[in-house]
Amino acid sequence: MATLTVDLGSRSYPIIVGSGLLAEPSTVSAYIPSDDVLVVTNETVAPLYLDRVMGLLGNRRVISQTLPDGEQYKSFETLQRVFDTLLQSRFSRDATLVALGGGVIGDLVGFAAACYQRGVSFVQIPTTLLAQVDSAVGGKTAVNHPAGKNMIGAFHQPACVIADTDTLRTLESRELAAGIAEVIKYGLIRDRLFFEWLESNMDHLLNCDQEALQYVIMESCRHKAEIVANDEKEAGERAILNLGHTFGHAIETASGYGSWLHGEAVAVGMLMAVTMSEKLGWLDRQIVDRTRRLLLSVNLPVAPPQGMTADDFLKHMSVDKKVVGGKIRLVLLHGLGCAKLVEDYPEEVLLQVLNEFSTI
Amino acid sequence: MATLTVDLGSRSYPIIVGSGLLAEPSTVSAYIPSDDVLVVTNETVAPLYLDRVMGLLGNRRVISQTLPDGEQYKSFETLQRVFDTLLQSRFSRDATLVALGGGVIGDLVGFAAACYQRGVSFVQIPTTLLAQVDSAVGGKTAVNHPAGKNMIGAFHQPACVIADTDTLRTLESRELAAGIAEVIKYGLIRDRLFFEWLESNMDHLLNCDQEALQYVIMESCRHKAEIVANDEKEAGERAILNLGHTFGHAIETASGYGSWLHGEAVAVGMLMAVTMSEKLGWLDRQIVDRTRRLLLSVNLPVAPPQGMTADDFLKHMSVDKKVVGGKIRLVLLHGLGCAKLVEDYPEEVLLQVLNEFSTI
Repeated sequence: MATLTVDLGSRSYPIIVGSGLLAEPSTVSAYIPSDDVLVVTNETVAPLYLDRVMGLLGNRRVISQTLPDGEQYKSFETLQRVFDTLLQSRFSRDATLVALGGGVIGDLVGFAAACYQRGVSFVQIPTTLLAQVDSAVGGKTAVNHPAGKNMIGAFHQPACVIADTDTLRTLESRELAAGIAEVIKYGLIRDRLFFEWLESNMDHLLNCDQEALQYVIMESCRHKAEIVANDEKEAGERAILNLGHTFGHAIETASGYGSWLHGEAVAVGMLMAVTMSEKLGWLDRQIVDRTRRLLLSVNLPVAPPQGMTADDFLKHMSVDKKVVGGKIRLVLLHGLGCAKLVEDYPEEVLLQVLNEFSTI
Repeated sequence: MATLTVDLGSRSYPIIVGSGLLAEPSTVSAYIPSDDVLVVTNETVAPLYLDRVMGLLGNRRVISQTLPDGEQYKSFETLQRVFDTLLQSRFSRDATLVALGGGVIGDLVGFAAACYQRGVSFVQIPTTLLAQVDSAVGGKTAVNHPAGKNMIGAFHQPACVIADTDTLRTLESRELAAGIAEVIKYGLIRDRLFFEWLESNMDHLLNCDQEALQYVIMESCRHKAEIVANDEKEAGERAILNLGHTFGHAIETASGYGSWLHGEAVAVGMLMAVTMSEKLGWLDRQIVDRTRRLLLSVNLPVAPPQGMTADDFLKHMSVDKKVVGGKIRLVLLHGLGCAKLVEDYPEEVLLQVLNEFSTI
């Protein structure tokens, strides 16, 4: 077991990572002072872990709600169902919500906690690698709008994040790969040595070696926690966490939520950003090749969906939150391990990349 | 014109009160750095002030949205319409929303601003007395849920509040009276001399004397700003602003949103709280009588809707946000001008008050 703290003053909170955490009542219980708890999960996770988590919560009034599984349910309608449950149960302002599941559950439940009675406490128990290394940490919560991903949301920090690496054993290999995409991201934006460690040790990760998993989750969370502590609300540095996400969100929106996993879209998006950085002369050609190779070694996609055009990209990218004053801001690399938020690039280089990727 | 500041560190903002402010382009324009502005108003206010406000905003991309008027539209569905407009217009994170209208518009637009792309700037231009003295100040935003008022919301401070007293000339007398209820509240909870000033000068207010209006709006905002600066998120002192609101929300919920004005329900609720304080021996009988007389002088109701029972009150009060651990917390008075948040009162005194008011 390993612990680190996201340092946000009075809103600081611990991230606890390790094997067997959900078998240990004291870990979860310590972070829930409330008498009233709503555990929200989905149909895939419920049969695996819901009873165990309910059992951890002892002599409280604990209610659970099981939602359908999938990005298409990260919607206003599902959010309403959570509010309905909270109000039917007459939960007050000192209730706690527990998000048990992947990124969709974490984002949705976090946003429900941000808004219910103008804000109640919540705890993240991420059960996918993607949620453990990324979405459960940092307080970004949201639901999707038909016109754009994560368009409606809030910054609302959890009271703690509990990442039990045992839950990754039940993860489908496609989900595991999607999480590894975000792990690779930390190497690309901030940590050349971590990128190289991943190049050498990917087999251990794919085999769910517990030590390797705990290591990459802690390293990823450490990077994310540092960035979030410096820039909680994404006024500046935090934006580098979005490497590949502007391209990726366009893929997700164009293909309809649910067909591509977020991490899969980000994998293609990262390769596009890396390619664009190389075209701008900021990155060696071999980094592009190594990135492609690393993504392929995890079975991640390296091209957008068939038929997606440069125009499709532009249409969906221009509603992304990274747009300022009509100009699409992009995270690009000035060398491996060094990301920058950029808006003063020649438009034609972006178009060149979009066209190249559209016709692969 | 008079100005005061709500002191919240980096989120501090000015409240500007006076006659003719909407005829003065520089006042509004100074607080909107954005190029993209969405002005949201309702069908009652639009024909009166929308063109004037649009005209103040100069060379920006300014869009307006006119919503139906009424508390019943302070809903998730209406909120969605605002998000649809923002996304159709491809507004980015640096857009500004302007709330032009009463408390419903202010709360709804403020909440839309809190959630759109996880938070954009907004400006309050309150056009009712209630909004000018209360709801536009302090950053509480929300929509209603069928099971309870203001159940879904956020704390999100505006960039400024511009209260043009001229807009009160077009206010229906019932709306003016509802605003005066909240003005009387500041006297009851915090300022005996202000209460006495109101007893002596109510005629000036009812006649829309501009000097009297500016005085009571500034005094009310000063009280609210001090309380909010001490306790932005209602961990403690801020709760005293809810004098009469727990009873009042029960009336609003029981009668269906829209038939009673918020200030009308609060008027009855305040009289109930004052009566309960007297029964507990905390307040002289004559203060109850003076409160009733002052409310009646404004034509405000002093009894709940016909047929509303003590059980109806209890049912709706127990989902109110002031409930902690199953006990209904109430704001009561320890003397005129001195409010306390109380939960250690004998249950039977509450029941006695509910029964007394139910059978009036």
